[in-house]
Amino acid sequence: MSQDRLQELRSQVDVINLQILELLNKRASIVTDIGKVQTELGTSFYDPAREAFMLHNLEKNNKGPFSNETIKALFREIFRASMALEEQQAKAKILVQRKSPDQRTVITLPNGAVIGDGSFTVITGPCAVESYEQMDETAAALAQRGIKIIRGMAYKPRTSPYEFQGLGEQGLQIARQVADKYGMVITSEIMDQSQIMMFMDYVDIFWVGARNMQNSFLLKSLGKINKPVILKRGLSATLEEFLYSAEYIVSSGNPNVILIERGIRTFEKWTRNTLDIGGVAVLKLESHLPVVVDISHSAGRRDIAKPLARVAKASGADGLMVEVHPNPPVALSDAKQQLTIPEFHALMDEIADRETAF
Amino acid sequence: MSQDRLQELRSQVDVINLQILELLNKRASIVTDIGKVQTELGTSFYDPAREAFMLHNLEKNNKGPFSNETIKALFREIFRASMALEEQQAKAKILVQRKSPDQRTVITLPNGAVIGDGSFTVITGPCAVESYEQMDETAAALAQRGIKIIRGMAYKPRTSPYEFQGLGEQGLQIARQVADKYGMVITSEIMDQSQIMMFMDYVDIFWVGARNMQNSFLLKSLGKINKPVILKRGLSATLEEFLYSAEYIVSSGNPNVILIERGIRTFEKWTRNTLDIGGVAVLKLESHLPVVVDISHSAGRRDIAKPLARVAKASGADGLMVEVHPNPPVALSDAKQQLTIPEFHALMDEIADRETAF
Amino acid sequence: MSQDRLQELRSQVDVINLQILELLNKRASIVTDIGKVQTELGTSFYDPAREAFMLHNLEKNNKGPFSNETIKALFREIFRASMALEEQQAKAKILVQRKSPDQRTVITLPNGAVIGDGSFTVITGPCAVESYEQMDETAAALAQRGIKIIRGMAYKPRTSPYEFQGLGEQGLQIARQVADKYGMVITSEIMDQSQIMMFMDYVDIFWVGARNMQNSFLLKSLGKINKPVILKRGLSATLEEFLYSAEYIVSSGNPNVILIERGIRTFEKWTRNTLDIGGVAVLKLESHLPVVVDISHSAGRRDIAKPLARVAKASGADGLMVEVHPNPPVALSDAKQQLTIPEFHALMDEIADRETAF
Amino acid sequence: MSQDRLQELRSQVDVINLQILELLNKRASIVTDIGKVQTELGTSFYDPAREAFMLHNLEKNNKGPFSNETIKALFREIFRASMALEEQQAKAKILVQRKSPDQRTVITLPNGAVIGDGSFTVITGPCAVESYEQMDETAAALAQRGIKIIRGMAYKPRTSPYEFQGLGEQGLQIARQVADKYGMVITSEIMDQSQIMMFMDYVDIFWVGARNMQNSFLLKSLGKINKPVILKRGLSATLEEFLYSAEYIVSSGNPNVILIERGIRTFEKWTRNTLDIGGVAVLKLESHLPVVVDISHSAGRRDIAKPLARVAKASGADGLMVEVHPNPPVALSDAKQQLTIPEFHALMDEIADRETAF
Repeated sequence: MSQDRLQELRSQVDVINLQILELLNKRASIVTDIGKVQTELGTSFYDPAREAFMLHNLEKNNKGPFSNETIKALFREIFRASMALEEQQAKAKILVQRKSPDQRTVITLPNGAVIGDGSFTVITGPCAVESYEQMDETAAALAQRGIKIIRGMAYKPRTSPYEFQGLGEQGLQIARQVADKYGMVITSEIMDQSQIMMFMDYVDIFWVGARNMQNSFLLKSLGKINKPVILKRGLSATLEEFLYSAEYIVSSGNPNVILIERGIRTFEKWTRNTLDIGGVAVLKLESHLPVVVDISHSAGRRDIAKPLARVAKASGADGLMVEVHPNPPVALSDAKQQLTIPEFHALMDEIADRETAF
Repeated sequence: MSQDRLQELRSQVDVINLQILELLNKRASIVTDIGKVQTELGTSFYDPAREAFMLHNLEKNNKGPFSNETIKALFREIFRASMALEEQQAKAKILVQRKSPDQRTVITLPNGAVIGDGSFTVITGPCAVESYEQMDETAAALAQRGIKIIRGMAYKPRTSPYEFQGLGEQGLQIARQVADKYGMVITSEIMDQSQIMMFMDYVDIFWVGARNMQNSFLLKSLGKINKPVILKRGLSATLEEFLYSAEYIVSSGNPNVILIERGIRTFEKWTRNTLDIGGVAVLKLESHLPVVVDISHSAGRRDIAKPLARVAKASGADGLMVEVHPNPPVALSDAKQQLTIPEFHALMDEIADRETAF
Repeated sequence: MSQDRLQELRSQVDVINLQILELLNKRASIVTDIGKVQTELGTSFYDPAREAFMLHNLEKNNKGPFSNETIKALFREIFRASMALEEQQAKAKILVQRKSPDQRTVITLPNGAVIGDGSFTVITGPCAVESYEQMDETAAALAQRGIKIIRGMAYKPRTSPYEFQGLGEQGLQIARQVADKYGMVITSEIMDQSQIMMFMDYVDIFWVGARNMQNSFLLKSLGKINKPVILKRGLSATLEEFLYSAEYIVSSGNPNVILIERGIRTFEKWTRNTLDIGGVAVLKLESHLPVVVDISHSAGRRDIAKPLARVAKASGADGLMVEVHPNPPVALSDAKQQLTIPEFHALMDEIADRETAF
Repeated sequence: MSQDRLQELRSQVDVINLQILELLNKRASIVTDIGKVQTELGTSFYDPAREAFMLHNLEKNNKGPFSNETIKALFREIFRASMALEEQQAKAKILVQRKSPDQRTVITLPNGAVIGDGSFTVITGPCAVESYEQMDETAAALAQRGIKIIRGMAYKPRTSPYEFQGLGEQGLQIARQVADKYGMVITSEIMDQSQIMMFMDYVDIFWVGARNMQNSFLLKSLGKINKPVILKRGLSATLEEFLYSAEYIVSSGNPNVILIERGIRTFEKWTRNTLDIGGVAVLKLESHLPVVVDISHSAGRRDIAKPLARVAKASGADGLMVEVHPNPPVALSDAKQQLTIPEFHALMDEIADRETAF
């Protein structure tokens, strides 16, 4: 009985839906015409006074059950949709959104390294460039395991102005020299758009840190260069915000963006951050961009590096990022989380043992 | 010429607006009926399969100029508004929900103390009952400032099983003796429903701690007694969950519930928790129950007790809760946050200086 | 030069450390003697006035550089350590703490199912028992894949008192009947200690939900029974709090506790909770108890079940928990996250493909 | 007899207490020297390897009765205290740290407005500059209530690249024109250091948004200009990180920084963010910089603006920030949280009614 009644009511809704659909489209056509007239008249398309009048009129005629607030909210959506029909259509096509299950952004680097093709890439190196010797010793070990992408961090964003801020351009020179020696490409963090041209001389992959994830000026500028960009998720950025930050770069012209999940800030204290592995799975579902898991900053402790490396691989991510240092206890930053070289080898063994593709 | 044309097109839009308005409201009425049928059938309002069907149908019939994406976005807003309407109507039956701006739950205690009538009540006492002397010394000081409600905590929920767990029933006896001596009422934390009858012999206001906020068995049982209940917000409970927990008690028959905001768990480390003062304002707006601000557990440090006491009063809350101990450094729990007796007097001076009602 | 000076200063510290060590132990011996005298005198061991005197005396004699606050804090630690030397020694031996890398709690169930021995166990079944047919249809499918432990949830802790609260004892009867038919054991959520004896008649593994994780009365009571307990991590419980909750059970006499990580509450909205996979790795390191990953509540969406199942296995966890329902859209709770039976089969294929042990 | 013995033993303890006291302080002095050497060497205070060595040495030499676990726990406390001492001394050099209870940074603006002198300043204006008319209408209303500082936001940091990004330099021109007409000063958000010189032509107070709080390049550059800077707390920045970001500006040469607490990101959904009013109290305690409370972004809803304005004043903050728009429903951003002009007047009445200084 109730089931029949439900069916009947639903049919009524279906009819009304189509009536509303028709009116919305009719309205959109007229508004398009209005836009043309306004262009002739040279007046602005956006007219707050006109909107206020229409809202007032609706309020006056609203007999419920929807409240005036709801009606106004719905019409505000309609106004917005109508006003920017073209823009709206563009919006429906967010560039970083995956359109089909097998759409992938595959990035090929100058030394032939490929990321995003279904293989599992390890990006590694010390937290910061400290000296030629330190970089060389690290790179020699990495080269043994076929690592193709090395961290060459020369500018370190630090909480306090009194902490080590990186070696600057000199650090980039060291990184370049060492990378060339071992046939590697460099990724290095850029702090400000004014550095872009200088970085172009040294760096193969631009790295945008968590603190700069929503620096839209920097993101738009990186959309204009022809080198790939690694974008780290902000400390407390939602996945939606993260993808929109990538969209700033891609919509400015640079399709080669790699996303890094590096843990989010929570109340938990036994790990430095909380690795959002569910977020990685969602990113792979929603976007065609490569996703890399940072197992160093998310944990902040090296004693769980092995299980996290296995987890990264199992999650369907395109790679992992881990910090390695020849002598972590004397490192100028992140001493607690960088792996020693023997620990790095053990980690590589751990993930090599597993089958590759998911 | 163009101006005339503009005017004409705008009139057409105005007509369509009103047609859409009418259809939206007609649709809302039917959806309300559907909600009633669903309530009878015991099924959820939210039905993703049905939504998917409707969206698909719209898409199939859409001839533009709005894109399918836009149409679906607009209808998703309409669905949301319709569902909100149903929820709003369901919410209208929530007992703890404020129905009119001046609706208030006013609670009168055996010793004449009143809470919720617009006055500002201070609930205080030590974190835990430790001895007769400690309670007596504290109560004597509180009596000087006209305090009517004293903490008499005899069961302490502790993180570790090896920490001090309270004096148990003996603690309740001490609290009762001291409270009677000074004409005060006692509030004491109940840990389990099996204690209710024993507590009835000693306690005037039952206290449900943060860890038990969603212990629905305990809440329902407390709905069956004739003494008021203080309900603390859980560590990470949303305001909605908090009000629903109160609803468990009230819908079981006990209307006298006092809400305590005691800070929520966040990443910030300089305070023990983050006092959600905006939440207090929202609770006062959404519910008619009295709301008390716990300035001890939210801060975890006594050096900001004065500003937080002023804040509690300014927020529109019905009172504040603060811990006071004759000798905090040797306290068996919460040593860092309990006020000394002189600090308590200073705090009372601080809020006495301010005008009362907001 | 500075390096030499550093070495010299460190040697001085080493000498002082040993002097302090000797004095601490000498002090502890005397305090032990004091304890004996107090036992003779029949006075309480804990003497706040004496502590206050000692602290005052230290303050009077403190010439820095340590502040009075620091000195008092350090001596409070010394008092505490001295006062409960035996208790302290007990505390140093937290029972759930792993003492050696290969220490494991292995739990064998009546039907021969084993958890914690290095194998990977899948615990599954619907969110709630809704009817005999629903349980039977589910169990039949599970039996095909060799599942040995089924969810038989008859009491549902819900946010609102107006939501479906479970079938109660009737649900347990259904679950028992179905489990017996397929040779499975049942796990079911207990809400209150008053239910324990009744549950003993139906249930093989007691389940403590996230909302009850710090219900110490319930935990202590579950320490007195001879059936295993599954303990879920609270919504915002730290790992430390989680292990201490397990300790409440184990220290009360029941060693068979299984930990479930079910996601923590964060700001992220695209998943229901944030699965703390780093926390799982840390729990396996710190404790010998089995750890299971709940991939349903942590995600709140079934479309990432496959990668999360792989992740659970890769993390080194002892198993995973996933909800399965013959017809999720009509489920009385958690409609969005329960797998259909075909999805369940696909999930089992996914993890069967992978090698087993980590 | 036993009483005498007790007395004797206690005297022995008193003597040992003072010996330990002396050794602790001697140890602390040496550790301070070590800290200085480490500062010369540029190494971190925290040295886990050294701690491990010391603990091992103590363990080796411990003859009881304290267990190794207790000894290590006590020494870990001593290590922590010693490190805190070093940090405290390092902190004494932090420029933004309050050195005495009455130290205040007082900022005087070109139009005579003063902030930080104990008065309560209201900073207001629309979320964004949309047109001359909108700014003029708003400013006329603000002028009636003596407002001296107006928001003139021309660059809007937005989550999506497809949202309204502000009018740009044209917006600054409008803001300048309107501010001059009413004798107000302008504050406007700067997005990138490349804009600084252009902004100098229009803006009186530079505004650094939450997303740029840790953009150290921008902060250092703003340390070199002679106009005040408003610094907003990041979405999930700790108070410590917030003060260090201010330190970047102040240590670069610009002492005139105003801190804005704007709510932090939590799980709560009924407010847009969680206003950290305890954090405001802590900031006033720890720093001499003026602190302003943003009651718009913290709440995200205008219906609790009045209680939050009272709370801001009661907290001891130096002012509040609130968004006002002539017609919020058609605003191009933040439609839900901006006050109408009549609501703004009601808010001013609300806080005018209260006494001023705390």
